[in-house]
Amino acid sequence: MTYSLTVRDHMMVAHSFTGEMFGPAQRLHGATFVVDATFRAHDLDDDGVVVDIGRAAEALRGILSALSYRNLDDEPQFQGVNTTTERLCRHVADRLVELAREGALGGGALTGIGVTLHESHIAWASYEVAL
Amino acid sequence: MTYSLTVRDHMMVAHSFTGEMFGPAQRLHGATFVVDATFRAHDLDDDGVVVDIGRAAEALRGILSALSYRNLDDEPQFQGVNTTTERLCRHVADRLVELAREGALGGGALTGIGVTLHESHIAWASYEVAL
Amino acid sequence: MTYSLTVRDHMMVAHSFTGEMFGPAQRLHGATFVVDATFRAHDLDDDGVVVDIGRAAEALRGILSALSYRNLDDEPQFQGVNTTTERLCRHVADRLVELAREGALGGGALTGIGVTLHESHIAWASYEVAL
Amino acid sequence: MTYSLTVRDHMMVAHSFTGEMFGPAQRLHGATFVVDATFRAHDLDDDGVVVDIGRAAEALRGILSALSYRNLDDEPQFQGVNTTTERLCRHVADRLVELAREGALGGGALTGIGVTLHESHIAWASYEVAL
Amino acid sequence: MTYSLTVRDHMMVAHSFTGEMFGPAQRLHGATFVVDATFRAHDLDDDGVVVDIGRAAEALRGILSALSYRNLDDEPQFQGVNTTTERLCRHVADRLVELAREGALGGGALTGIGVTLHESHIAWASYEVAL
Amino acid sequence: MTYSLTVRDHMMVAHSFTGEMFGPAQRLHGATFVVDATFRAHDLDDDGVVVDIGRAAEALRGILSALSYRNLDDEPQFQGVNTTTERLCRHVADRLVELAREGALGGGALTGIGVTLHESHIAWASYEVAL
Repeated sequence: MTYSLTVRDHMMVAHSFTGEMFGPAQRLHGATFVVDATFRAHDLDDDGVVVDIGRAAEALRGILSALSYRNLDDEPQFQGVNTTTERLCRHVADRLVELAREGALGGGALTGIGVTLHESHIAWASYEVAL
Repeated sequence: MTYSLTVRDHMMVAHSFTGEMFGPAQRLHGATFVVDATFRAHDLDDDGVVVDIGRAAEALRGILSALSYRNLDDEPQFQGVNTTTERLCRHVADRLVELAREGALGGGALTGIGVTLHESHIAWASYEVAL
Repeated sequence: MTYSLTVRDHMMVAHSFTGEMFGPAQRLHGATFVVDATFRAHDLDDDGVVVDIGRAAEALRGILSALSYRNLDDEPQFQGVNTTTERLCRHVADRLVELAREGALGGGALTGIGVTLHESHIAWASYEVAL
Repeated sequence: MTYSLTVRDHMMVAHSFTGEMFGPAQRLHGATFVVDATFRAHDLDDDGVVVDIGRAAEALRGILSALSYRNLDDEPQFQGVNTTTERLCRHVADRLVELAREGALGGGALTGIGVTLHESHIAWASYEVAL
Repeated sequence: MTYSLTVRDHMMVAHSFTGEMFGPAQRLHGATFVVDATFRAHDLDDDGVVVDIGRAAEALRGILSALSYRNLDDEPQFQGVNTTTERLCRHVADRLVELAREGALGGGALTGIGVTLHESHIAWASYEVAL
Repeated sequence: MTYSLTVRDHMMVAHSFTGEMFGPAQRLHGATFVVDATFRAHDLDDDGVVVDIGRAAEALRGILSALSYRNLDDEPQFQGVNTTTERLCRHVADRLVELAREGALGGGALTGIGVTLHESHIAWASYEVAL
């Protein structure tokens, strides 16, 4: 059995893609990513939660703020790779994993973290990692 | 391979939380929980369904009616625990498991039941159990 | 012609209703209200906006914070009236009108303000006022 | 009495804003705009429609394609103005009005056109014009 | 100033259209219509509501039940006309107006009724009538 | 760890069900199915994607076009079975699996495909298969 808690936030970024497959998305364009961060656990802590929802929302906010209102093509950490929706899911998830391991999210032992980025009303991507 | 069917309903309750972590939510407040109940099976029955959607919706309605328009702080079954979104997911799921085991939902053999409670447009929790 | 800008936030409250019509909602219960505040203008200001979206969101946040995580039955301002979804729409709109008149939202001259409160996935109410 | 028909599509663009009010949005960033185009009429045509939904969707698609996957800061038509969500609503509506006047949308006489651009799950703008 | 209350329900029907404009929709096909019924009033009644939400939901349920799980091509009331989304909006609204005039919805004096039918995630129609 | 990408489209069909359990849905009726197709992979390809989103959307469009604006009761492939939402999920997923195996979706090695069909705002079904 698994419990999970999810919080939602968003970011607005510019970027471009390299590779013919991307067609017009090779041009500089942008996206609003509505971001869902999911935390999973086999059990709840004594307060009855998976994580402290306030700290989880704050953690997500901090991660997205470091990317938001920016042109991702200029960010050193993304040089040489396409900042596809899939890759950005992993970027956000990896940061959340670090914070979870530092105990920054409250709650008990997590078994997994998942991140979904909605790029429009008709497309989204996810990345899920076990802890 | 897995099939699933999900039905949605809702309930409106009052409650309060114990524990400093909850901040202002320690005060008596309330929530609308939009509730998604998911039934999973490896195969469909002869009619081509996971469960009888009418009976599943009725089962969920019954479970939520027993909680709806109430102050959960006054309910004997929740004394001494925080009725967090996570715990309420499990409460609903446990009732659905009982009904599934009694054969009250129609369909064939279920392999799992999951329940998601949306507490707002930016937060939700889930509980998933294998059968 | 009319421009409008809408921002969304939410609050979680407890309350009860007086009157047989309300059935089980006469008991103490609660709700998550997802709140949409809409600002209308015949023209945009020089920056190209109806209101400053940051200040509008902050204004809405402040109004909802004063009600959130509370039992509305205990609030002096709501004594003797039912805090129906319709009435709460007006309460929020009236506060926004005051702030708009004080010039606290930025932007140019507003022609109207509307507020929608979603009480569930199947019911919502609105209040619209001309300025 | 008024009938209306709405079709939804989207575009993904980069842009930046001029003016201190915009804070971090003065940097080059981007947005997914989910776009709803609404056509209004006092009566239906003989086929029972406000406009030909296929032609309306195609018209919206064409207007958005001319902006999509682009940096709006580089578009000659937007030089010297902020491409706020409000302004982009009007841009799309003005194009639809031209097409409606040319009879390119089918249906009967329209009384109004409205356009809503959703920039995130918590903010959207609209522009409404009478015909 | 105007208050409104909206309730949502749905129906699932088969139908076909006459007229070349409809393309493949001239064939027998079907739709789920998610239906929003909105009731408008200048003022609230003594209980603080536009209409009795329970009776409004029941009224909408009754109107949709008379159409649901049917082939609209076989319904006598729709012979010789296309049951477009726009026309079905009016059909539902006209029934609600009758019920409102009979006082079947509770609340005070209504100033208008509106009905929206969502035929998919990318298309919907509305009909609005003053009372 | 798992990446996934999802694209959404829809179809509008008529059908009827055999079996007393289905109640009024034994009559000829219809549905809009909003369809989400999810592609899963352990890793991304060199371009940073699970599949080519353009080809995935086109593949889904093709599969749904073959069913859309039709009465499923007349389709040879569905004779003798109920075209329940669950079964239609599998039908769509099986076609996507074929296309994935032919390499028609681009990207790298897929580990699974899932399909969700939303039949209304309160009910949906899914089918998930490992590759």
